[in-house]
Amino acid sequence: MPTAPLTIEARDGRARAGLLHTPHGDIRTPAFVPLASTATVRTLHASEVATLGYDMVLGNTFHLFIQPGHEHIERMGGLHEFMGWRRPIITDSGGFQVFSMGHGSVADEIKGRRDGGHTRRMILSIEEEGVRFRSYLDGSERFMGPETSMEIQAALGSDIALAFDECTPFHVTRDYTARSTERTHRWLDRCVAWQRERGPEGQLLYGIVQGGVHEDLRAESSAYVSGAGVDGVAIGGSLGQEKEQMREVVGWAAAGIGRDDVPVHLLGIGDVDDLLDMVALGIDTFDCATPTRLARHGTAIVRDPERRWRLDLERPEWRESREPIDEGCPCPACREHTRGYLHYLARANELTAIRLVALHNLTFMAALMAGLRDAIAAGELRAYSQRVRSGDAPF
Amino acid sequence: MPTAPLTIEARDGRARAGLLHTPHGDIRTPAFVPLASTATVRTLHASEVATLGYDMVLGNTFHLFIQPGHEHIERMGGLHEFMGWRRPIITDSGGFQVFSMGHGSVADEIKGRRDGGHTRRMILSIEEEGVRFRSYLDGSERFMGPETSMEIQAALGSDIALAFDECTPFHVTRDYTARSTERTHRWLDRCVAWQRERGPEGQLLYGIVQGGVHEDLRAESSAYVSGAGVDGVAIGGSLGQEKEQMREVVGWAAAGIGRDDVPVHLLGIGDVDDLLDMVALGIDTFDCATPTRLARHGTAIVRDPERRWRLDLERPEWRESREPIDEGCPCPACREHTRGYLHYLARANELTAIRLVALHNLTFMAALMAGLRDAIAAGELRAYSQRVRSGDAPF
Repeated sequence: MPTAPLTIEARDGRARAGLLHTPHGDIRTPAFVPLASTATVRTLHASEVATLGYDMVLGNTFHLFIQPGHEHIERMGGLHEFMGWRRPIITDSGGFQVFSMGHGSVADEIKGRRDGGHTRRMILSIEEEGVRFRSYLDGSERFMGPETSMEIQAALGSDIALAFDECTPFHVTRDYTARSTERTHRWLDRCVAWQRERGPEGQLLYGIVQGGVHEDLRAESSAYVSGAGVDGVAIGGSLGQEKEQMREVVGWAAAGIGRDDVPVHLLGIGDVDDLLDMVALGIDTFDCATPTRLARHGTAIVRDPERRWRLDLERPEWRESREPIDEGCPCPACREHTRGYLHYLARANELTAIRLVALHNLTFMAALMAGLRDAIAAGELRAYSQRVRSGDAPF
Repeated sequence: MPTAPLTIEARDGRARAGLLHTPHGDIRTPAFVPLASTATVRTLHASEVATLGYDMVLGNTFHLFIQPGHEHIERMGGLHEFMGWRRPIITDSGGFQVFSMGHGSVADEIKGRRDGGHTRRMILSIEEEGVRFRSYLDGSERFMGPETSMEIQAALGSDIALAFDECTPFHVTRDYTARSTERTHRWLDRCVAWQRERGPEGQLLYGIVQGGVHEDLRAESSAYVSGAGVDGVAIGGSLGQEKEQMREVVGWAAAGIGRDDVPVHLLGIGDVDDLLDMVALGIDTFDCATPTRLARHGTAIVRDPERRWRLDLERPEWRESREPIDEGCPCPACREHTRGYLHYLARANELTAIRLVALHNLTFMAALMAGLRDAIAAGELRAYSQRVRSGDAPF
């Protein structure tokens, strides 16, 4: 690494605020990274995402591999050019999605919920070389291993690539988790080797810490990953069934990194209280489907800790409401429209509802992260987090 | 009428440009009116529609009657307040949608295409009093007649209300058309009477000219409607199977109005060449689903007369295109994105595609109408229309 990718500008306890440097510019940290899984943040075009205050989006290696294909995106000038987004992009490795097909819904599994059995299992084999599976698009047989994943991410031209890992589910034995984590480490070494030789200039590579909910496995994995010559560390896999356990598991993983200058990403976490907890543990970046997925279901993120910061606009109680979602919020849904109107649009399945609530939710998350950065810079993280937990922030 | 609703500022042949005055402000004419049938222009919030340069939108009496109900919208402060749109609103009468249920798809019928039989027929009775039908939402029995329609439009608080009419289909006898048109006239008188007594202050009322494709019936209907004490005239019903016939039928209807100061609306017409023809015949305002409906199917409106001004972004030929839809267009789809990206988004059924193409199509239509207004003011309508027909305008 010619220069450290992370400049830490302020610290408050274990939390830190700074700048993460990438070929397409800097990301102000701690940062929330909206999903542009399919090369678009749902209902928004790229320049709108920048206007909302986001420095980076996350592209999905697996989905873009299946459709429209990474070679196509490369021919179109890379993912930035393809989607008209000139700022940093992080791409996940595809491991999460590939293994979703084998383990049922990984999203359920890593939270310890049993798979209902309705998820199609389309994995053909998991071997040391990689994973063979069927495309959900056309049923064709496809393969993804560490080198494939790195090759796809190179073709996409992302600023930050993630190493290919097995996203170990919750409902497996300690022994399975240990063996799976070791294989993830071997895959990491192959990713590092491939990227050093053939990766695009300046692309950062993050390794992924696995180890399930086992303290020793997490500590070992963190030590292994952070010592493997990576530019950053991502924490993945099952973080347990409860928030208490999540704090514990992430604490083990973060502590195990051993070095203080490594940027740390937490995969798939985005609830308001979790962000407060995890920023306090020193996490720099987060990605999560929540803001846009909730929008699709008519649920706004609001300053209401007692309702888990969620407002279901489809509930009958909002039908006649002439209040905005949040009177302090500067988004168009709040400045120009009522809960009653959004209730009607959401119940009528109008696309305008999805868009307006997505704009609101992403405005909330951007404000929350800006507030956290300012609080860390001012040494007031605890007080600010308390304000958020009381419903007095981020607006 | 205290003052004339239309100020004609310029004429060019039978075409005219001016200002249509309503309680919520003026509409620059000739104007295209985007559909906000369900109290939203699909994927756009209201202030965006204003930013695109539109002065008026069309709300749908029938749909809003069914969901969320006009009483509800009235309690919420009226349709302007409900949807956050502070500019003029025209509401159709509900006749078109009510009769769609009886005649199959009116959109097909008025263009002379036979109904495939798959449309649910949910009309229970058509009588002098009005129409009894089943709600498409819950199957409940509902009634709409002239007074109901006016009452709904009063509750919505639209700036321009349309009288309740039977939208006579194409595949009926001349005799049926004559009797239906006469009933439409009787219904018009009831609408005028209701509105004079109970209509909201300042709301304009347009009568609807029917008469099918029969010159004498159209002439009679125009004379009747324009003499019935209305503020404006809308031309509805079947305009025939071909553009040639449409010009003829609209010509008869327009000529039959007899007075030159009456604002004239043409219902449901929005193809580029039709707008050129119809503006030349003296039509002031148009509404049509085309720009937003095409967007839903990934089709952009472009300067390509040979392809009927349409560009199907889903066609394989655009897959690798790095051109914008139209390099002269100022919309975000054209300024920031390629045909190749939009092709991918549309084929992947991404909502962002619908939104970006809707923004483009509405930008095109706004530019076209602004160009027509300027051309009329400059006495250059023929030259401008020729430029549009050659693909050299509106950008």
